Amino acid sequence: MVGVTIPHPSSGDTAARRQRLRARLATAATPVDAFVVSDLINVRYLTGFTGSNAALLIDVDDPSRDRICTDGRYRTQVANQVPDLEAVIERNCPQALIERARDGGATRIGFESDAMTVAAHRSLTRRFDDAGLELIGSDGLVQELRMVKDPHEIALLRAACAIGDAALAQIIADGAIRAGATEREVARALEWTMYRLGADGIAFETIVAAGPNSAVPHHRPTDAVLTDGDLVKIDFGAVYAGYHSDMTRTFVLTRAADWQQELYALVATAQAAGRAALTPGAELRAVDAAARDVIDEAGHGDDYVHGLGHGVGLEIHEAPGIGKLAAGTLPCGAAVTVEPGVYLPGRGGVRIEDTLVVTDGEPDLLTATDKTFTVI
Amino acid sequence: MVGVTIPHPSSGDTAARRQRLRARLATAATPVDAFVVSDLINVRYLTGFTGSNAALLIDVDDPSRDRICTDGRYRTQVANQVPDLEAVIERNCPQALIERARDGGATRIGFESDAMTVAAHRSLTRRFDDAGLELIGSDGLVQELRMVKDPHEIALLRAACAIGDAALAQIIADGAIRAGATEREVARALEWTMYRLGADGIAFETIVAAGPNSAVPHHRPTDAVLTDGDLVKIDFGAVYAGYHSDMTRTFVLTRAADWQQELYALVATAQAAGRAALTPGAELRAVDAAARDVIDEAGHGDDYVHGLGHGVGLEIHEAPGIGKLAAGTLPCGAAVTVEPGVYLPGRGGVRIEDTLVVTDGEPDLLTATDKTFTVI
Repeated sequence: MVGVTIPHPSSGDTAARRQRLRARLATAATPVDAFVVSDLINVRYLTGFTGSNAALLIDVDDPSRDRICTDGRYRTQVANQVPDLEAVIERNCPQALIERARDGGATRIGFESDAMTVAAHRSLTRRFDDAGLELIGSDGLVQELRMVKDPHEIALLRAACAIGDAALAQIIADGAIRAGATEREVARALEWTMYRLGADGIAFETIVAAGPNSAVPHHRPTDAVLTDGDLVKIDFGAVYAGYHSDMTRTFVLTRAADWQQELYALVATAQAAGRAALTPGAELRAVDAAARDVIDEAGHGDDYVHGLGHGVGLEIHEAPGIGKLAAGTLPCGAAVTVEPGVYLPGRGGVRIEDTLVVTDGEPDLLTATDKTFTVI
Repeated sequence: MVGVTIPHPSSGDTAARRQRLRARLATAATPVDAFVVSDLINVRYLTGFTGSNAALLIDVDDPSRDRICTDGRYRTQVANQVPDLEAVIERNCPQALIERARDGGATRIGFESDAMTVAAHRSLTRRFDDAGLELIGSDGLVQELRMVKDPHEIALLRAACAIGDAALAQIIADGAIRAGATEREVARALEWTMYRLGADGIAFETIVAAGPNSAVPHHRPTDAVLTDGDLVKIDFGAVYAGYHSDMTRTFVLTRAADWQQELYALVATAQAAGRAALTPGAELRAVDAAARDVIDEAGHGDDYVHGLGHGVGLEIHEAPGIGKLAAGTLPCGAAVTVEPGVYLPGRGGVRIEDTLVVTDGEPDLLTATDKTFTVI
């Protein structure tokens, strides 16, 4: 790793997150006695547990009645990762926890309607409908809490971004980005290097797109060979202790044409405008517009086919989305990407992307790789 | 790669799969006019499309009215990967396809209730309830088709397993599995080697568990150091063109104790019994019992805490599950794992796992690595 070693969240961190959820539930429009979290990422956020089958029961009144449930494969793991919660060992976790809550006197039990499938819900309502239980769905409650990162999360995001920075610098130093290499070779070199530097995983399918391929926003690396004069767009990230980094840089190989320099300058200006718009309380669509207006005014609005950015954390894409149609405002402490791009079909494209944290002052730039137009 | 290059499925393969689904829908208990596939893995299976937002409309009567939907990021990709289907470009794919079907006269539209969330379903019913449309959920329809692999899929599974075999052989030859190495180093070496050999990805979080850790069925690699006399359990797989391999081998470092040899012999006998029980039409729980009985009779039933195996293909875990409580029978052409294990807490555990395809004769063993008790 890049000189950092950060432990998994302490019980104090996760207990504080559960308290924030409890407070949120206590003031919900439709009150509940208990709430079952079944989205695995949300369970991880609220407990630190990383197994592949789990749910969490939050008692609205009494934290000592919170329970985590997982199956027998994870008996030891759950004891290690979640020492501060009693574990229920069952395979069907939402069902087991609803039974617990019911046995404890709960009659109105909330669930995550954006995590539970229609089939799972039907099975639960069949089982509990006669028992006088009411199951009350809500969307995005924990995701909303997750928008605001705590110091532990910011440290992990910073570590993930540092791995990405160091890996890109390393493969440039090694000469891996060169005419004659294939897109796939560059992607693999970058991924191996991130692993070597301490990444636990790759944040998403690495994009390396050369020449005309750079005009495809989400190009998958192929055996296409990098050629002198190509734009080379690289969009990639590392996972560190569950947290994702996300960065895009676009280079030119050997020599740059005027149109490439102009395109780069335009996107860089738009990206800087987007970063400058990251202030607490800003309307999300105003942040999007800050960058988009620059590109629109240059007459390239139709060549910029996606939103400005997205939240990043335990998921590579999470709330808030920053786009033309986004609703809401940017909270202080949100970690987001700013990634405008202009894509000229058949010729090439430029995208520049950073991951930043919104603060009361300047946004905290987690991706440190230089953004000057660079010929490799 | 290990001397194999196999293209993505041809339009012929995926069209044949859609025909199988159409035939299945035509004989369904609750008839529908059209069916919307929104599980992304199922969409990939039926079309070859690999983007992260998509749905597929199957017209029960007329294949020429089938449509794939994805958003603007994937306009070029969908044209390349799915040349034989007209693409609808929209962000909310299920909604866009239901509108298409309704405009074409469909009134009863099936959907995947095990893929659609309660929130998404509520939004669709609000939109379409007044339009005289009936949305009819069903579970596992495409997953059922996916149980039986076609020759193209078997070739891809074979390639993924060959990468796993070659990678394990390579790191053993390189001396990576040795006293003094950490679990994490062995896991990373194995993963890098799989990538170098042509893997597109890692099938699941690689398990390397040494000494007492080998008694934890799903141990995550740590900085624990491998030590002479340790059992070292390695459970890992490669992804190749979307298909997963899955194999576990357990070694002993430097010198083996009698209890380790006995434990290994017991698990190997159980695993052979499990493999021998893989015949078309066999009851799934009888397959599980074939191996479990061996372990039960040796008095270690309580130390074998999971099912015998699972289907493997576009997902690392898919139908059929082979366990004590499994319902149904094993179809010819199913690709499954056979992976009994015995875990002695605080001492160590042994698991031996292969991936095989059920045939009319001997099962086709895709994981070729030797299973003789091996001291490294």
